[in-house]
Amino acid sequence: MKINQFATVKNEFKTELRELINSHFVANESVLEKSPMVVLKSLLQRCYPEMPSVNGADFKIDQLMATENLTATQLLKNEHALTVTQFYNLALQLLQFEVGVDFNLSDPISALNEINLPHLTVADFTTQDLLHAWYLLLTTHTKNGQSFLDHLATKGYFAKLLQTTQLPKPFLFNGKAQAVFDTNNLIREVVYVESDQDTDHDGQLDLLKVEILRPEETETGLKVPTLYTASPYNQGTNDEAGEKLTHNVDVPLTEKPVISPTLTDLQASEAKPATLPAKRDVKGNASHAEQSFSRESSYTLNDYFLARGFAVVYAAGIGTMESDGFRTTGDPEETTSTVAVIEWLAGNRQAFTNKKDHIGIEAWWSSHHVAITGRSYLGTLAIAAATSGVEGLDTIISEAAISSWYDYYRENGLVIAPGGFQGEDADVLAEETFSREKQAADYLPIKPAWQAALSQMGQEQDRSTGNYNSFWDDRNYRKQLASIKADILMVHGLNDWNVKPKNVWKMWQGLKDLPVTQKIILHQGQHIYINNFQSLDYTDMVNLWLCNKLLGVQNNADEILPDVLVQDNTKVETWNAYQDWGGSAAPIELNLSADKLTSDAAPSAISTFTDQLSEPNFTHYKSHYANWRHDLVSTDSTPMAANRLIFKTDPLTKEVVLGGGATVSLRVASSQSVGMLSFRLIDYGVAKRLSVSPQLLSRNALDEGYHWREDDLKEFQLASATPYKLISIGHLNLQNQKNSYQTEKLVPNQFVDVSIDLQPTVFRVQPGHQIGLVVYATDMEMTVRGNQDIQYQLDLSGCHLTLPLQEK
Amino acid sequence: MKINQFATVKNEFKTELRELINSHFVANESVLEKSPMVVLKSLLQRCYPEMPSVNGADFKIDQLMATENLTATQLLKNEHALTVTQFYNLALQLLQFEVGVDFNLSDPISALNEINLPHLTVADFTTQDLLHAWYLLLTTHTKNGQSFLDHLATKGYFAKLLQTTQLPKPFLFNGKAQAVFDTNNLIREVVYVESDQDTDHDGQLDLLKVEILRPEETETGLKVPTLYTASPYNQGTNDEAGEKLTHNVDVPLTEKPVISPTLTDLQASEAKPATLPAKRDVKGNASHAEQSFSRESSYTLNDYFLARGFAVVYAAGIGTMESDGFRTTGDPEETTSTVAVIEWLAGNRQAFTNKKDHIGIEAWWSSHHVAITGRSYLGTLAIAAATSGVEGLDTIISEAAISSWYDYYRENGLVIAPGGFQGEDADVLAEETFSREKQAADYLPIKPAWQAALSQMGQEQDRSTGNYNSFWDDRNYRKQLASIKADILMVHGLNDWNVKPKNVWKMWQGLKDLPVTQKIILHQGQHIYINNFQSLDYTDMVNLWLCNKLLGVQNNADEILPDVLVQDNTKVETWNAYQDWGGSAAPIELNLSADKLTSDAAPSAISTFTDQLSEPNFTHYKSHYANWRHDLVSTDSTPMAANRLIFKTDPLTKEVVLGGGATVSLRVASSQSVGMLSFRLIDYGVAKRLSVSPQLLSRNALDEGYHWREDDLKEFQLASATPYKLISIGHLNLQNQKNSYQTEKLVPNQFVDVSIDLQPTVFRVQPGHQIGLVVYATDMEMTVRGNQDIQYQLDLSGCHLTLPLQEK
Repeated sequence: MKINQFATVKNEFKTELRELINSHFVANESVLEKSPMVVLKSLLQRCYPEMPSVNGADFKIDQLMATENLTATQLLKNEHALTVTQFYNLALQLLQFEVGVDFNLSDPISALNEINLPHLTVADFTTQDLLHAWYLLLTTHTKNGQSFLDHLATKGYFAKLLQTTQLPKPFLFNGKAQAVFDTNNLIREVVYVESDQDTDHDGQLDLLKVEILRPEETETGLKVPTLYTASPYNQGTNDEAGEKLTHNVDVPLTEKPVISPTLTDLQASEAKPATLPAKRDVKGNASHAEQSFSRESSYTLNDYFLARGFAVVYAAGIGTMESDGFRTTGDPEETTSTVAVIEWLAGNRQAFTNKKDHIGIEAWWSSHHVAITGRSYLGTLAIAAATSGVEGLDTIISEAAISSWYDYYRENGLVIAPGGFQGEDADVLAEETFSREKQAADYLPIKPAWQAALSQMGQEQDRSTGNYNSFWDDRNYRKQLASIKADILMVHGLNDWNVKPKNVWKMWQGLKDLPVTQKIILHQGQHIYINNFQSLDYTDMVNLWLCNKLLGVQNNADEILPDVLVQDNTKVETWNAYQDWGGSAAPIELNLSADKLTSDAAPSAISTFTDQLSEPNFTHYKSHYANWRHDLVSTDSTPMAANRLIFKTDPLTKEVVLGGGATVSLRVASSQSVGMLSFRLIDYGVAKRLSVSPQLLSRNALDEGYHWREDDLKEFQLASATPYKLISIGHLNLQNQKNSYQTEKLVPNQFVDVSIDLQPTVFRVQPGHQIGLVVYATDMEMTVRGNQDIQYQLDLSGCHLTLPLQEK
Repeated sequence: MKINQFATVKNEFKTELRELINSHFVANESVLEKSPMVVLKSLLQRCYPEMPSVNGADFKIDQLMATENLTATQLLKNEHALTVTQFYNLALQLLQFEVGVDFNLSDPISALNEINLPHLTVADFTTQDLLHAWYLLLTTHTKNGQSFLDHLATKGYFAKLLQTTQLPKPFLFNGKAQAVFDTNNLIREVVYVESDQDTDHDGQLDLLKVEILRPEETETGLKVPTLYTASPYNQGTNDEAGEKLTHNVDVPLTEKPVISPTLTDLQASEAKPATLPAKRDVKGNASHAEQSFSRESSYTLNDYFLARGFAVVYAAGIGTMESDGFRTTGDPEETTSTVAVIEWLAGNRQAFTNKKDHIGIEAWWSSHHVAITGRSYLGTLAIAAATSGVEGLDTIISEAAISSWYDYYRENGLVIAPGGFQGEDADVLAEETFSREKQAADYLPIKPAWQAALSQMGQEQDRSTGNYNSFWDDRNYRKQLASIKADILMVHGLNDWNVKPKNVWKMWQGLKDLPVTQKIILHQGQHIYINNFQSLDYTDMVNLWLCNKLLGVQNNADEILPDVLVQDNTKVETWNAYQDWGGSAAPIELNLSADKLTSDAAPSAISTFTDQLSEPNFTHYKSHYANWRHDLVSTDSTPMAANRLIFKTDPLTKEVVLGGGATVSLRVASSQSVGMLSFRLIDYGVAKRLSVSPQLLSRNALDEGYHWREDDLKEFQLASATPYKLISIGHLNLQNQKNSYQTEKLVPNQFVDVSIDLQPTVFRVQPGHQIGLVVYATDMEMTVRGNQDIQYQLDLSGCHLTLPLQEK
């Protein structure tokens, strides 16, 4: 087992001692005059706040061993020196590691090194050593994914202390906010923010429902920062209606007209109507809401911060249940609605207590410092809001976020489904999230207008060409990167084929020269949250980051947190820090030759494959993607053998660490006037690899506070050995030889040169493995599937592959 | 969608009105003098307790439609008649069903019928009709798996009421306890019960740790009943040590000596030592515990009852962390330790506040009425405790429980692994659950004695013969069925190949003539809990049952709850009630003929198969059970084709409903002096069948109280079509021709007659399908796997299959 902590602040002893005193582990500085053993006893007795009596704590202490022959109780009775072995034997047990399973009493230091836990190396402890070691211990993670101090808090450490003592709120320890707020007494309110838009064209500015949870302490004057999650899903989804609208993908690829617009042509986006409805008159003001809710659709990371003195607000935006407006899937109107909530939280926008009485309500409890959190569409709206440069938005944490919707639903002139959602498109998602539909009295009057809007979106998204057009240009947040003022923490899965890694790669590249701090964490998962892993202190990292950005705590978050943190794909529980993603100067250049990837000169040879599949294979693959995926890349004889070309390197003699996106350049001909190519970069080699999804280690093991909401502890584990692993993918319409918005005529059997950047990654290919490139046409999971009779030829003299490397 | 409710009490209107008054939906009987519309408005306003204002409730009401053209707000404004359509349109929306998705405003009654929700049929409502309908509505399930009243409670209905009003506690509605207890203020205590046993032979009676959660109201005099879960897992498990001890199953089946003991011979079980250590002197008494805990390992069903005025206790028993003793896996010592906790709860046994000071503590808050709950080993200990006849144990709810450990780890003279746990045995489970190992100071002194006890268990369980012996006889609870005084609710999965259905079938049969009430629920799952299904009001059923058994509420639970409730295997969301399991007089008798199951006369013919598999198939199957299972029963050509015989009926002309256990009689010869047979009864026929596991419908949708712990809503759904489905299994050692404890010599190639009962079931085989019997030897998942070179011959003239049917 290995635990990786990146959010620990290194302090001087003076600071450590002050924090130990403030958190009541020791009474005052006179503790330094006591013997280590006396101090240790009093520290250990504080480790069982769940016990109503000192007797109870002593019973727990009595279960601990200090050495192979000495119990903790026996140790504490004598006045001998405290050795490093004795202390760390006890410390490991406190951290929930087991004797004989996780470590041996004869040598706790080896275990600390192996698990990667910080520790002192002195032989005998002075009292100051002990206090320093105790401070480190409080910031060290237990076996169950929490810092030891968080673990104590979930057992009631602060709750018990607060029965007799005042603590400053928020309460900081090691630069991070601690769980001192009582989540039983949270205040839950609903307000309606008035936005400068009328997306349902009803002649009234859209009102947007906002659900607020804030600490009770705000009622007595505490101003708190806010974590805002903008989730179009959180008022419910129209799954059946969405499914009905899902597009048929069993259609042929069709020839596109030749067009050559410029990017400027596409930017002639529909402006907002010049005259908006007037703002509502304010007919009175209320200090408290008249509406509330019982259970919000929550994010456990937000729950964690509710116990630590942050307010949390959820808003679903235009077109969702109990808000006004229509869903627009990523356009500027949606951004406007997302930003309106921040403006209210920053004191710059009007909100009302309900939708009809015009009674105003302010976020008087807000410190005007806001962060956005969330994954997928939620993280996407974080990016959207950031590109507005709105005042009050100090940081965003965007996880698995879309940075341009073209990169979500399209690629190089092809309609490309997000992994797992074949046939979905912008209109489907709009319908899915249009939760006003769930309330009949609200929906029925606007149904015709909504259906018309939906139909228009269906046309503008233009599935017939798959080209980048003004609809998609409107939904490209990266055009406004220069407006961003918020610092950004990005998280993305290197195996996320839903929101593909290109979305975050282009953010990373685009932000480099801007005056904001950016950090990125790349994990080996798919489209997941990572705040419940055993091996990484992600939650602590976010805590450090938010205390710095929202509370102004001088904790050096920018310096302490690594710029680029990447989960290793070859080893469990391993996270590597880098200064940049990719960034190595000399890529590997390879040519395609027969079935090889080689540095030899490109041969004059033609390789061919056909796209069409016979039955029952075609029909079978349509509903058995795993079989299709296997048969596509397996070098065994499969029904797909004639339907793709596979090129492989020789077995590698040393490890290669890919970093960034591979580029494939091809000279290719299609037998028809249409054509598409798909690519898979594969790591061939039998190996045990990380499980596809993190595995459940312990249900409900993570209490986000004290008797508060819980999360499961998870971790990627090694799965059974597999013969290969997907590294990256890419897709291209052969009519889009220059870019995604201009098209060319494709002459049957005439060669054209194309080039495509595959999805970026960081990937270690082990010695003995082979890197493979699979070239094919129809992607059962992502492209249209007309099963057309098309033959493709590659002129290998014009084919090569560039593999960029990750800097050390 | 279909919702099945079995726990609704039918009351007279007088009772309904009284309960509506008691629960403050109406003020008093004068409500009958008001118009339906006035009453309806006031009822609707009570449906949004989460709203801090009437305005807020009115806003919610304003989202509802009463008819296609009339909103609820408009309806309430007029003084016209209230129609059945108007009422049920509103009711369905209150129950979270969606207009246009789940029902149409033009015809709510069709939807009510389809979803199977109770309703009135009058045209216009009188006020009395309305109140009756409202009462029904409160007991009706929402779309999200809770009664409407429970749904209101999770939104704060009772919490809000209690701010201004006293309610009787416990509070009953429709014969069931309601969520009126504040779970934020639960009292958590630990006590140590002194048991009459010394299983670790340390010269002291074993002390057993008990974790208690009880309502704060007990502090002011309320006596409460207790739900007790005895879970050997809940103090942690030794997974690595258990894995190390797991037995190698890649060993040959070996010849057993011929023995003929009688059952009486086997019952010479080791008696307890005549002289036990003395009871501890009581040196004082405490009213409150000195130890507590922060988070117990809980069962959500228990959490639900904590909000309803029941205490919950968890105890892990002998040999678990912070208790004394050794684990014994199912023997009478374990039963004694399980029962000791009940004796303390019933006021008949001593407990202490800690393990050393001899300070006594009573369960003074206990009403002396106890039920046991839990699944698997937990449910097993419920059966164990019930067979003691202990005073105070009024009922057990045993889910997926073992009734004889021989039926868990052995079958007909073979070592048979529980599904999913190849190589596990009684000793492995003892080691897994011996959580004293987790605390070094407790474990190290007793380690040698424990290892010796474990080694002895390893011998006594006797993997070499697989015979029923005194070790297993000690672990057969069914010998003591006559002692049972508790009423029993049993739950079991018909696809549970871990704890196989024979365990519950034999309980059901064995209890029939005893003076206790028994009920059984058979679901289509594997080894799962069923208290979070959308389609079944299981939690309500348990509520009705426990109020009757523990609180003495006269709610007719025995009459209302069906005796036998079976989930249909052919349709989603369908539960069928019967009076008995099996029970039909005339079974189907079939002979085996070539590859057929037929009612024709048995032919004189020999069919043969071999057990040995070639490589790489054998090795592959050992780690790919799904492939093995498929190749075994598929009638396509597979690598298993020569390794089994398949006999099939002609396609059925009408549905057959199997009920109970099929019997296979065979005349068989082995080519060696050892032999085993395995059987699978298969439903052949392409069909969409229920998913193997229930699917997640909505995360955290079930709040067990008000801002309390949550559970996910789940349901079995139809999966992709499959060509067959396993109905039942069975295994037999050919040396055990009479029974599981006597053995015969097996002469190579000499035919013997054997008979075996397969696992019992209730299974609908659809018209057009074929019933198949697969006969083979090695079961990769359950038997030893020596891959021996053995040929088997069946003399079909002596082979037949009896299929018992389920009564209508």
